[in-house]
Amino acid sequence: MSNDVREDSMARLADVARKAGVSVATASRALVRPEMVAERTRQRVRDAAIELGFRYHPSAQALATGRSRLLALLVPDLTNPFYAPIIAGAQRAAEGSGNDLLVVVTEESPERERLLIDRLRDRVDGFLAIAPRGASSLFTSLDVPMVLVDRRVRGVPSVVVDTPGGLGELGAHLAELGHRRIAYLGGPRGSWADPRRLEGLQRGLAHEVVAFGPLPPTFEAGSDIVDELLASDCTAAVAYNSALFLGLLYRLAQLGVQVPEALSVCCADNLAGLGLAVPEATALHVPAEEAGSAAVEMVLATVDGRSPEPRHRSVPVQLVIGKTTAMPR
Amino acid sequence: MSNDVREDSMARLADVARKAGVSVATASRALVRPEMVAERTRQRVRDAAIELGFRYHPSAQALATGRSRLLALLVPDLTNPFYAPIIAGAQRAAEGSGNDLLVVVTEESPERERLLIDRLRDRVDGFLAIAPRGASSLFTSLDVPMVLVDRRVRGVPSVVVDTPGGLGELGAHLAELGHRRIAYLGGPRGSWADPRRLEGLQRGLAHEVVAFGPLPPTFEAGSDIVDELLASDCTAAVAYNSALFLGLLYRLAQLGVQVPEALSVCCADNLAGLGLAVPEATALHVPAEEAGSAAVEMVLATVDGRSPEPRHRSVPVQLVIGKTTAMPR
Repeated sequence: MSNDVREDSMARLADVARKAGVSVATASRALVRPEMVAERTRQRVRDAAIELGFRYHPSAQALATGRSRLLALLVPDLTNPFYAPIIAGAQRAAEGSGNDLLVVVTEESPERERLLIDRLRDRVDGFLAIAPRGASSLFTSLDVPMVLVDRRVRGVPSVVVDTPGGLGELGAHLAELGHRRIAYLGGPRGSWADPRRLEGLQRGLAHEVVAFGPLPPTFEAGSDIVDELLASDCTAAVAYNSALFLGLLYRLAQLGVQVPEALSVCCADNLAGLGLAVPEATALHVPAEEAGSAAVEMVLATVDGRSPEPRHRSVPVQLVIGKTTAMPR
Repeated sequence: MSNDVREDSMARLADVARKAGVSVATASRALVRPEMVAERTRQRVRDAAIELGFRYHPSAQALATGRSRLLALLVPDLTNPFYAPIIAGAQRAAEGSGNDLLVVVTEESPERERLLIDRLRDRVDGFLAIAPRGASSLFTSLDVPMVLVDRRVRGVPSVVVDTPGGLGELGAHLAELGHRRIAYLGGPRGSWADPRRLEGLQRGLAHEVVAFGPLPPTFEAGSDIVDELLASDCTAAVAYNSALFLGLLYRLAQLGVQVPEALSVCCADNLAGLGLAVPEATALHVPAEEAGSAAVEMVLATVDGRSPEPRHRSVPVQLVIGKTTAMPR
């Protein structure tokens, strides 16, 4: 039955090609990878296909080429605002190269990561995984193309946003202003990024960092930590993320604590894409879309049998100095 | 060539079935829709498949059944925090029924919506579209299953979150407290939801609503509108979304305006999932995940040739009364 379907499609693709006055290969390319064909040819093939009632069948194409032109992106949690622009960047790069992106949520479960990879491996050409939670061995033992984002595993290609490097610059900025006792409002328990951010901040400083946390990355936690922070004699505070930062700023304003006169505050991201950037705050600007598109390029190189060069990419972040940091009193 | 591939797969599925001691249909189901098969049978088929080196081939299955078990979800913008939980709910429902979800970003462009539907229609069984921007005719003329979320078009199944109804309750709550002049901080220009939210709020009130906007849905816009708001003699303000609300609260705190004594404030959503809920704020709690899962159920009903019942669903929101609203002075 399905053999008939297939032969039928083949015969009709030849009809389309004949009608459009191009080779079967060109007709196929015009339908399957239109970006590789001149606009006029594409239009001619499309017109012929419409006139003959020919429908391009991706499943038949996948059987013929062994490529599905689908990539899967595993993300721990779609409600983490940090991931949305990474996904948007990956989406754009996938589409730009004639692929589609399947976004799947792992709910921060290593078990689900394994199940989803298992379930999708025959359906997609390759995987991207943002901050996956599984053990390294899950990724090193895979025989399908895989690129990690914001996690590094020996032997597996990866793209990492260099927030720790940015925090080093932020620490140097605070030290230069004269701060000697700096608070770090840490991220959630078990976070891969959190200890690396703290370490980055410490690298930028000759002096003491007072670490608070682990803290849930929420507005409420940022607001709740303020009393303890004010009692700590720190003259500056660095927040792990924007939700904490917004809660911190709000509570300080409620208490009438002047920023930056009484306390300098800054943040390791700025959520500009979500409309949540605080105007004129000192914060790291994270080119997250770039990380997403770099990861897609790398996985497509692997699908094509090339080794991505370099195998590990680091995307730099940009320190934006605003008006929430100043010399200590 | 591909005929060989296909016959080869078929032959081997029969081998797997024989080895596992089940029918070919059961073996197929165990690999393709494991949730429909008992754990023991699934394990037996899986073991047999591994032993024989059989790989389930989704493309071959799609040709045989005419179903890809893929659904596409069109979303205007992944960085809109309101959409993330809708997608998460859709994802869970899709997976729970043995389907995968392709999430694609339309960048708020009606032209891209048309292109993406065209590009994916042969690859997926059906579509979901969150708040699509295209003209109604794009959706009424489609011959593939489509369910709209947060947009209603005559003749096309849809799920709409009843934020306007919730705003009616919020208006009634403020009226009952004694507010007679209430500010509405509106959403972005061209928003489908914004005039409906304003109308909902007005329905709950016998009195005047002073509408500010259209405003960009950002922290900065919420902060910037405060001077104008305070000059307006309103005793309460309702924000279109959380980004506006957070900016508003922050600026009021900076100015030392007491909430709720000097001004009652509340919000049409609460972003609890993003960690951005303001503790004890009066706000609408939006069960967005439910909207996503309802939409998937409806599109799968259409794929199966059934008409979803009802064709239009309304998901109620819940008014949570906190400590940011009180009687006017």
